[in-house]
Amino acid sequence: MALIVQKYGGTSVANIERIQSVARRVVERRKAGDSLVVVLSARAGETDRLLALAREMSPDPDPRELDVLLATGEQITIALFSMAVKELGAEAVSMTGYQAGIITDHHHGEARISWIETIPVMERLNEGKIVVVAGFQGYDDEGNITTLGRGGSDTSAVALAAALGAEVCEIYTDVEGVFTTDPNLYSKARKLERISFEEMLEMASMGAKVLHLRSVEFGMKYNVPIMVLSSFTDAPGTLVTKEDEEMEKVVVSGITYNRNEARITLTDVPDMPGMAARLFQPLSDEDVNVDLIVQGRGSVPGKANISFTVPQKDYDKTMRVAERVGREIGAGRIHSNPNISKISLIGLGMRSHSGVASKMFTTLANENINIKMISTSEIKISVIVDEKYTELAVRVLHDAFQLDKPPNERIRIQEEF
Amino acid sequence: MALIVQKYGGTSVANIERIQSVARRVVERRKAGDSLVVVLSARAGETDRLLALAREMSPDPDPRELDVLLATGEQITIALFSMAVKELGAEAVSMTGYQAGIITDHHHGEARISWIETIPVMERLNEGKIVVVAGFQGYDDEGNITTLGRGGSDTSAVALAAALGAEVCEIYTDVEGVFTTDPNLYSKARKLERISFEEMLEMASMGAKVLHLRSVEFGMKYNVPIMVLSSFTDAPGTLVTKEDEEMEKVVVSGITYNRNEARITLTDVPDMPGMAARLFQPLSDEDVNVDLIVQGRGSVPGKANISFTVPQKDYDKTMRVAERVGREIGAGRIHSNPNISKISLIGLGMRSHSGVASKMFTTLANENINIKMISTSEIKISVIVDEKYTELAVRVLHDAFQLDKPPNERIRIQEEF
Repeated sequence: MALIVQKYGGTSVANIERIQSVARRVVERRKAGDSLVVVLSARAGETDRLLALAREMSPDPDPRELDVLLATGEQITIALFSMAVKELGAEAVSMTGYQAGIITDHHHGEARISWIETIPVMERLNEGKIVVVAGFQGYDDEGNITTLGRGGSDTSAVALAAALGAEVCEIYTDVEGVFTTDPNLYSKARKLERISFEEMLEMASMGAKVLHLRSVEFGMKYNVPIMVLSSFTDAPGTLVTKEDEEMEKVVVSGITYNRNEARITLTDVPDMPGMAARLFQPLSDEDVNVDLIVQGRGSVPGKANISFTVPQKDYDKTMRVAERVGREIGAGRIHSNPNISKISLIGLGMRSHSGVASKMFTTLANENINIKMISTSEIKISVIVDEKYTELAVRVLHDAFQLDKPPNERIRIQEEF
Repeated sequence: MALIVQKYGGTSVANIERIQSVARRVVERRKAGDSLVVVLSARAGETDRLLALAREMSPDPDPRELDVLLATGEQITIALFSMAVKELGAEAVSMTGYQAGIITDHHHGEARISWIETIPVMERLNEGKIVVVAGFQGYDDEGNITTLGRGGSDTSAVALAAALGAEVCEIYTDVEGVFTTDPNLYSKARKLERISFEEMLEMASMGAKVLHLRSVEFGMKYNVPIMVLSSFTDAPGTLVTKEDEEMEKVVVSGITYNRNEARITLTDVPDMPGMAARLFQPLSDEDVNVDLIVQGRGSVPGKANISFTVPQKDYDKTMRVAERVGREIGAGRIHSNPNISKISLIGLGMRSHSGVASKMFTTLANENINIKMISTSEIKISVIVDEKYTELAVRVLHDAFQLDKPPNERIRIQEEF
């Protein structure tokens, strides 16, 4: 008898019928012998509905009270779901974040789980009950309700799995797993059987929305295997797990894209120590998350051009800061482009295989797609291109790296070069 | 600086505008110097909406999970209200039943408050904050969420006022106070300035829906004055308080009616010890709350007729029990009437004034209203009449006892007889 933590997202519990359908699935699994902790999100649309209510009350709602408000979304789901399970003749008990002992720091709206008091959940599991936990929420050491931020239910589930020593954390969602790229964008996208935590981290932070970034970090830190699968089919999902030899042989595991960034360039910045800090510190102070930064030579010696990307939603704010700082430090012009896209190749095998970057650049060049910025890490290469080339870039790269084929059927890159 | 507990019902916080309006009222009061604990209900309609969701899931939803579900209604209100207060520049902090230390027994859906851990609320009051508490909810000693039943927010407020030693508990509602009778039924109804706990208890249990019965019991037990007033006007309300000499002089304080009862009569029940128990024990076992019981002589010696009233919703269930027991004990026929109404006169002065009953019967007889059952207590006389006479009976009794006039302007009953 294994202990399994399952998480179902908002679309999986969007209405009465879907909650009942998930309840049937869970009860069957329980009858097969597994101990189950089920972590649930708010019904699809509920969080947005509550946010809209808060915004009617205040353009900038108090963060503590916003968490009190939002936490009701999951509380409704766990109550309805537990009723559905009992209606099927099985035993269930719902637990809010507080009741399930999920303790966080004080950061309302973006709280991080600091530890989990597992006794309450363990006790109810030992009674043979299906324990139904409200995802996305916890409480701080002063007893205030906190929430973990968008997608936080994934983190609740993986953290519970880690704390309870569960065999696996199953994340049920509206897709069948992790794909080589977004299947909505390219129909040749192939579902991955397995992927390493590190690759999944890069995929999540690069824009793949299958898993919440912090849940992957938790899984990696505590080595909790995460299975991503669909709540609407019985298709096998994707296992996110620690890397092994087989994985390392795969050069490119997936391609992600992100259309929600904007690029800003300051030209002819005096090339002196401290200039970067004078620009990026005020952006950090305004909570702007700068992504790529590239510094190159300016038009005259002693001057440099600095390009960087920020989330599109922070574009106006960033432009105001850039214009102010540009004047203060005597920079040249400011160029900006809010219509860019970031395309990233991700794969553990890049560590040991050369030639990935040049194949990527050649492939894009063959389609006359101009690369505006490049950034690389050990297992990732990202390029910035015009937004209009997003689909084309993803497709030609997917073809070039043969991602539609299983890894063992691909022609190895080295052999081509 | 006084400590005041205020409670606002569902209609007072039904939407954003009303929540803002109540918040303005509360902030003004705080600025005037009082310490404030504000107890809120769910927005009007919210509890019914949640109940409907639960009923979609199960015809008989699990009581524990139903409480988890319903408790979200008040949690939403306290969060929105606290945001509104902060938007007005004052300090507020919301507290769920759990956070406010409201501890109850285990009776989900009808829990009784066993004690209140006041330290969390006191601490926040001492910080100068307006403490905004979710009414209607608490938690049991195992940490389960409980609810207090319909109207339970009144009880939350009065219990908090008692535990905190508040000067008064103000119950804001959609009427201006307690009236001599339902103003919707008779426009001559007069608002009472003061009424005793005991009279209010009778009024509440007889169908006046201004205050929740248990909140009055709490007020009486701990001697917390309760002020009933409107959240929509600045009109003075009705003070419910312990009785004094002035109150005792008032013969009749109010008239209530209840159309939601049904009458059942078993004829020719063998007049032997234990017969009543054989009928009423099975009803009690089925949670049917029998109200009036009258036993009289049957058609032959040694037989008795037993009439009783039950809530209309329990009519079918009661008939099944009555028919079964009737056969078992060899009773005669069963007569029933689901269309009856109970009219009650209530007043402390009845204790010392005779003539109230006969004046009541005469008044009704003059209108050819047939009395089907009579029940009296120290400060109350109730009669059962045909439902169609409800309005007429209330109006003629209201006139006969001059309830439209202040007590000191009424002609005393003794002088008439």
